[in-house]
Amino acid sequence: MPKLLDDASISAALQTLPAWERAGGSLVRTAQLPSFPAAIAVVDRVAEIAEEADHHPDIDIRWRTLTFRCSTHSAGGITELDVELARKIDEQVAAAQG
Amino acid sequence: MPKLLDDASISAALQTLPAWERAGGSLVRTAQLPSFPAAIAVVDRVAEIAEEADHHPDIDIRWRTLTFRCSTHSAGGITELDVELARKIDEQVAAAQG
Repeated sequence: MPKLLDDASISAALQTLPAWERAGGSLVRTAQLPSFPAAIAVVDRVAEIAEEADHHPDIDIRWRTLTFRCSTHSAGGITELDVELARKIDEQVAAAQG
Repeated sequence: MPKLLDDASISAALQTLPAWERAGGSLVRTAQLPSFPAAIAVVDRVAEIAEEADHHPDIDIRWRTLTFRCSTHSAGGITELDVELARKIDEQVAAAQG
């Protein structure tokens, strides 16, 4: 079972994840992609990563704007799994934004 | 410019779309798929349909549960475009649910 991160650890992680913010028990990021197909392609890549890790973010699709929420439901908040997933989402968004 | 449907037209459409409800200026449906990859596959098919029609639903992904919201933002509410999109989403969900 992954351990909940304490506030100091979350703050330290967020310093290396400038696109993300903490919203209660989740890490949240919104990203605008160049087009709707580009946004869906990012969803697909993130979905593959999430399925491999068996750790799934919430994803909201609003045309070409995506919102990701990472939380470890079984632990009731933010764990290292969420920090890792946030980093991988950033990589996919950066690759798609060119 | 698509015309807003009046209340009677929306009610009539909803009688043929039992999985959907009206929520203000949107048609809304939630669907549970057999797995997360199956849910993402439905998102992909709906995204193709939406891009072809240049009419994009809001989609929320919560593991294998999808919520679709269809609204015509340019018209400020529900139009025939949303009814058509809702039908096509139903087809994709039904195909994936087997």
